[in-house]
Amino acid sequence: MEVIDVLRMNGGIGDTSYANNSLVQQKVILMTRPITEAAITDLYCSLFPKSISIADLGCSSGPNTFLAVSELIKTVEKKRKILGQKSPEYHVYLNDLPSNDFNTIFKSVPRFQENLKLQMESEFGPCVFAGVPGSFYQRLFPAKSLHFVHSSYSLQWLSQVPELEEVNKGNIYMACSSPPSVIKAYIDQFEKDFSTFLSCRAEELVTGGGMVLTILGRKSEDPCSKDGCYIWDLLALALKQMISEGLIEEKKLDSFNIPQYTPSPAEVRSLVEMEGSFTVDRLEATEIHWNAHDSEYFEFDEFKDGGYNVAKCMRAVAEPLLVSHFGEGIIEEVFSRYKKILSDRMSKEKTQFINVIVSLAKRA
Amino acid sequence: MEVIDVLRMNGGIGDTSYANNSLVQQKVILMTRPITEAAITDLYCSLFPKSISIADLGCSSGPNTFLAVSELIKTVEKKRKILGQKSPEYHVYLNDLPSNDFNTIFKSVPRFQENLKLQMESEFGPCVFAGVPGSFYQRLFPAKSLHFVHSSYSLQWLSQVPELEEVNKGNIYMACSSPPSVIKAYIDQFEKDFSTFLSCRAEELVTGGGMVLTILGRKSEDPCSKDGCYIWDLLALALKQMISEGLIEEKKLDSFNIPQYTPSPAEVRSLVEMEGSFTVDRLEATEIHWNAHDSEYFEFDEFKDGGYNVAKCMRAVAEPLLVSHFGEGIIEEVFSRYKKILSDRMSKEKTQFINVIVSLAKRA
Repeated sequence: MEVIDVLRMNGGIGDTSYANNSLVQQKVILMTRPITEAAITDLYCSLFPKSISIADLGCSSGPNTFLAVSELIKTVEKKRKILGQKSPEYHVYLNDLPSNDFNTIFKSVPRFQENLKLQMESEFGPCVFAGVPGSFYQRLFPAKSLHFVHSSYSLQWLSQVPELEEVNKGNIYMACSSPPSVIKAYIDQFEKDFSTFLSCRAEELVTGGGMVLTILGRKSEDPCSKDGCYIWDLLALALKQMISEGLIEEKKLDSFNIPQYTPSPAEVRSLVEMEGSFTVDRLEATEIHWNAHDSEYFEFDEFKDGGYNVAKCMRAVAEPLLVSHFGEGIIEEVFSRYKKILSDRMSKEKTQFINVIVSLAKRA
Repeated sequence: MEVIDVLRMNGGIGDTSYANNSLVQQKVILMTRPITEAAITDLYCSLFPKSISIADLGCSSGPNTFLAVSELIKTVEKKRKILGQKSPEYHVYLNDLPSNDFNTIFKSVPRFQENLKLQMESEFGPCVFAGVPGSFYQRLFPAKSLHFVHSSYSLQWLSQVPELEEVNKGNIYMACSSPPSVIKAYIDQFEKDFSTFLSCRAEELVTGGGMVLTILGRKSEDPCSKDGCYIWDLLALALKQMISEGLIEEKKLDSFNIPQYTPSPAEVRSLVEMEGSFTVDRLEATEIHWNAHDSEYFEFDEFKDGGYNVAKCMRAVAEPLLVSHFGEGIIEEVFSRYKKILSDRMSKEKTQFINVIVSLAKRA
């Protein structure tokens, strides 16, 4: 089973951790809206295609699965009405790993289609849907078949844990105390994965097609900077507490590493230029607080506890990885400690995730 | 919920009834192989497309889901090797209603892709997969995007139970004793559904594209002939026995009708000609015994009992419809009686299903 398969297994609608996670994602999609709107509008106005194929990569299955696609379609419809054009056909491709819950997504498709039709008022579509199972580090779509690719909060996940020559002692991710060979292995894995991603999509996009990718990243050029690593550092801290109390074997921790890489905007630009298929139209880094929950969403006191929220959010992502490595038994204790550590740090310092947002156009 | 949604809900791998059903389907796919092979070979040799898009409509989720597609790909690969052509890209679209278990299908996709690659020996594909949820009585695919459509044992299902002006007293399907208005309503519903199907596919197929459809049908021109109706007649018999014993209300039976229509080859031809988008390349009717199980498959005695096999097979299809109308309570009793009736009739007379197989080419 691929590492990311393990990650996805835990996603389930109705789960508090998932709902928390989805609020962060929702915010991110809405934050990147101006960039996405500009990209799809430019594409529409330069190609005026009779049909538009849109792919969302790493769509997950939850309340946000249709959000990005719905925003994109609405943007095109608004523009085509202003320009007096006929509504194009929309082809929506939702991608995630084969273990994603596509059944739940598919059951929502008819209602989503009906709602879209109602919202559009005038003649619209047709708008057809397909689910595409598979890793986006391989070919997923027919050659020259896509107009627009969207991906949010997925590309920081590597295709596998990097192969390390040395033990990443006391760490579970890149950290100040990681050996240089570990840092290099992480960088190499990301470079390989991201370049593969770009090449595959370059084959699949039509000339003039575009992508907007939002990647969990960092602002600093130092791969071990707090931006990307602190959240995992604190999880490592919780695990190390448990080692010191004899609850986890030290050896076990030595072989546990998170298959993620949080790139800087400059790294993203450099890899795009090196791969050569795309030009960078826009590249930005934005900040989002670890506890990115608007208080109006939450009436329960527990949701106002930042540590609780972030621990829940991280649990949705990290639990499957931890369970497959350490077993079920330690989970409650790890996250109880992690929550306390997070609450403490969040009360004392500014804690934030960095989103690297890049808008790319396929070269002629 | 659509009627056919109810039908699909019951499909589950590992269930004996499903396995039985799937053996019949497997036989049908293999029986129609010469027609399918000829159709896809003609298509390949007239278009030599760089990529071939194949859709299987009503793919279900079980051991046969990949069978038809796999046969089609192998046929093209054989031909392109003989002709010294490069392997085309394959785009496979698996369609069924949104309630179909796509998760199970998607989990098998990576293994299926690997196996195909191994079997092909030389350079092959890529071969990408997508799941397309929705009724095939509406648009499902982008315009002019498909080369080949396959559908087996799905098109006899109507989009809904026909709206009847009179009660179909004592019957659950078309029967000799059905009022003429009931027969007409069934015919009208099939004409409407099948024509809609043809128009939608005509928009989606490229010029020169083709379809091979296998439909449960009849040889006779009489819609109430035994060919298509006898199997349901005998189920009605079991239900009527239970009415006479007060186990089912007569009123309940009056409002229960099966949303199926088993057309004759002539009807299929006439509707294709009337709709106008396709030419009929081949049209055949073949017979398959109700108990179409090769004895080598079965070591258990129960499988050698034809009544048992056919009741199991029909149960997979009819149980969801019966449960949603009559409730769970009567099911065991209905199928126990149905099995006995089937065994009795099968020992006394020749009982068979008729497959209507039609190969269509899209007009220029």
